[in-house]
Amino acid sequence: TNPVFTGLPTTIFEVMSRLAIEHGSINLGQGFPDVDGPEDVRRAAAEALIAGPNQYPPMMGVPALRQAVAAANKRFYGLDIDWKTEVLVTSGATEALADIFTAIIEPGDEIVVIEPLYDCYLPMIRRAGGIPKLVRVTPPHWELDTGALAAAFSDRTKAILINNPMNPAAKVFTRDELTFIAELCVRHDAYAICDEVYEHIVFDGREHIPLMTLPGMRERAIRIGSAGKTFSLTGWKVGYVTATPRLLDPIAKAHQFTTFTTPAALQQAVAYGLGKDDSYYAGLAGDLEKKRDRLAAGLSALGFGVVPCAGTYFVTADFAPLGLSGSDAEICQRMTVEAGVTAVPVSAFYDGNAPATFVRFCFSKRDEILDGALERLGAWI
Amino acid sequence: TNPVFTGLPTTIFEVMSRLAIEHGSINLGQGFPDVDGPEDVRRAAAEALIAGPNQYPPMMGVPALRQAVAAANKRFYGLDIDWKTEVLVTSGATEALADIFTAIIEPGDEIVVIEPLYDCYLPMIRRAGGIPKLVRVTPPHWELDTGALAAAFSDRTKAILINNPMNPAAKVFTRDELTFIAELCVRHDAYAICDEVYEHIVFDGREHIPLMTLPGMRERAIRIGSAGKTFSLTGWKVGYVTATPRLLDPIAKAHQFTTFTTPAALQQAVAYGLGKDDSYYAGLAGDLEKKRDRLAAGLSALGFGVVPCAGTYFVTADFAPLGLSGSDAEICQRMTVEAGVTAVPVSAFYDGNAPATFVRFCFSKRDEILDGALERLGAWI
Ligand SMILES: CSCCC(=O)C(=O)O
Ligand SMILES: CSCCC(=O)C(=O)O
Repeated sequence: TNPVFTGLPTTIFEVMSRLAIEHGSINLGQGFPDVDGPEDVRRAAAEALIAGPNQYPPMMGVPALRQAVAAANKRFYGLDIDWKTEVLVTSGATEALADIFTAIIEPGDEIVVIEPLYDCYLPMIRRAGGIPKLVRVTPPHWELDTGALAAAFSDRTKAILINNPMNPAAKVFTRDELTFIAELCVRHDAYAICDEVYEHIVFDGREHIPLMTLPGMRERAIRIGSAGKTFSLTGWKVGYVTATPRLLDPIAKAHQFTTFTTPAALQQAVAYGLGKDDSYYAGLAGDLEKKRDRLAAGLSALGFGVVPCAGTYFVTADFAPLGLSGSDAEICQRMTVEAGVTAVPVSAFYDGNAPATFVRFCFSKRDEILDGALERLGAWI
Repeated sequence: TNPVFTGLPTTIFEVMSRLAIEHGSINLGQGFPDVDGPEDVRRAAAEALIAGPNQYPPMMGVPALRQAVAAANKRFYGLDIDWKTEVLVTSGATEALADIFTAIIEPGDEIVVIEPLYDCYLPMIRRAGGIPKLVRVTPPHWELDTGALAAAFSDRTKAILINNPMNPAAKVFTRDELTFIAELCVRHDAYAICDEVYEHIVFDGREHIPLMTLPGMRERAIRIGSAGKTFSLTGWKVGYVTATPRLLDPIAKAHQFTTFTTPAALQQAVAYGLGKDDSYYAGLAGDLEKKRDRLAAGLSALGFGVVPCAGTYFVTADFAPLGLSGSDAEICQRMTVEAGVTAVPVSAFYDGNAPATFVRFCFSKRDEILDGALERLGAWI
């Protein structure tokens, strides 16, 4: 069997969700909202299923969605995207990443990645024959060590992978940081794989800046978006990739031999959803901002060292101030079993040598669920 | 970019469908029915979308569907399958194949494959570092050259890939052939990747025999099924893999880093569909058998050399008797543009050195469409 996958554990999100179900625990582990996204979007999909056709849509995606993705790039970021040659629909952002790595990596290529990182990145890069070069941002302020980043680039660098807004750090990259990254890409003739699935979930008046909008990056950046995150429908598995034709071409080739297409009814509904007015997008971020405040305040009151959260629906917290002993994985296990609250150990987002006392909570949950979790944690501590 | 994908053409099915749309031609190329599958199945999915939750289902698939797949294995083939450890749901059979090759191939492993073959097989095998060893079945009777097959196995053989019923040959493997294959697998300690997406589409009272049911194969066979084919909903992209836990484990690891999950509403509906009574399955094959007869008779009357079709919804035909000159690809191009009927060149199912005068027609279309295509072809010839 394939050396990259043999012995690989089941993803931490699935493991913790299974454990949460087993113990009837409040699941603030795996990242998903507990209230489904807009009913009109779901209804649009339901109607398309009944009306049909339910046969293979075009391999690149249904035109309405590709047009809507191009339009959203214009509306939110001023990007001029040609939907016919620069937009590909995928079966979720995970498939998008798989397609991109498969398409652009040649064995031995180096890919610069920033820890903490989403747990599929490293196995995906290695499966494609790439060599990850790890750089870190460090809590509590998740500052980018620009010296280390520059040193990670070499003439073997094929691309940097950047998750912005960043899971689990809840960091939103600043224009200065992005400018620094863009300059490195240009200097080293590297691509940028931009996992921007949380693009619409940024707080406190911050702006999400796609790396693709920076000088020199229009032709270098591959931008990934996700209907699951943008419409609180994580189970739909509809993602989209925007890139210049020279890059999108091989990605589409990888896609055609990975899933080939994505259900048309869901694509149609997402196309409709992307056209929602500004109040929808403001509401998404605004609601989550309040939930962030609610959970963060509660965790602080309990004595956790809460790390600032600028975007995504995750907040990380240091349990060291509570005097709990054990690894973050042990604490998450105990919290599930003893307290009835599930979180994810932040060490799962590192290749090794991780900070040892941080856990990640997902706050895209109803207020009473967040309150219930805080109450249970309070009783346990 | 990745050497396997650079320069790879867009899949022939997509190319011919685009051309058909462009020329307003009757599309008997890409394999999909022109009438959607059961309305109650679609309605079940629509209701699940509205009811929710629309969040990540379990990575292995929703329990109801995994149970239904296990039950179908029992009902149709007498196989005892443990749904908890031996069934994985994927985003279509294409993703299933990608996961399987990724999981079981180590670079340098040989995979025995039988030409003509579905066009994703070779790039997928090569992407995973495998080396395809090609054997042929030859028209018009698509007999298996058992000597050549035995010679293709070696101590580097990791697996045989067998598509049964076989696209585009429309061949249904006999018990004798399968016994021969099973013995080779046992002798060479090889796995069998069984693409059985057309399992319910066999004609003239034939029986579909999963290789997994043969002696020694329960622990060696990896069986792939497809809701798209079984319920005439090719756009849903719901597939399922059945295999012994030792094999399914790494496949699930590959799956979790390829698409991770498949839309829950569609899974729920397919679970419901698999429970349909025998009349549904008999009706599916019976209706298609009549369509096969209709198209085959019409093509014969026009002078095509129609190759016998025992299963799938494809019939291949030799255009040499018509005295048409040009490659099969050229004839398919001309047929689309000049006659207004689209077929797929059979050479697209070969790595090279293909028979030159065969085209494939898909007959899962309304009778009036088949008649219209025959009329147009008649006028053109
Ligand atoms: C694919 S399950 C993980 C969901 C997620 O994005 C997260 O929890 O970080
Ligand atoms: C993935 S599109 C091809 C559909 C099909 O199974 C075929 O035409 O053979």
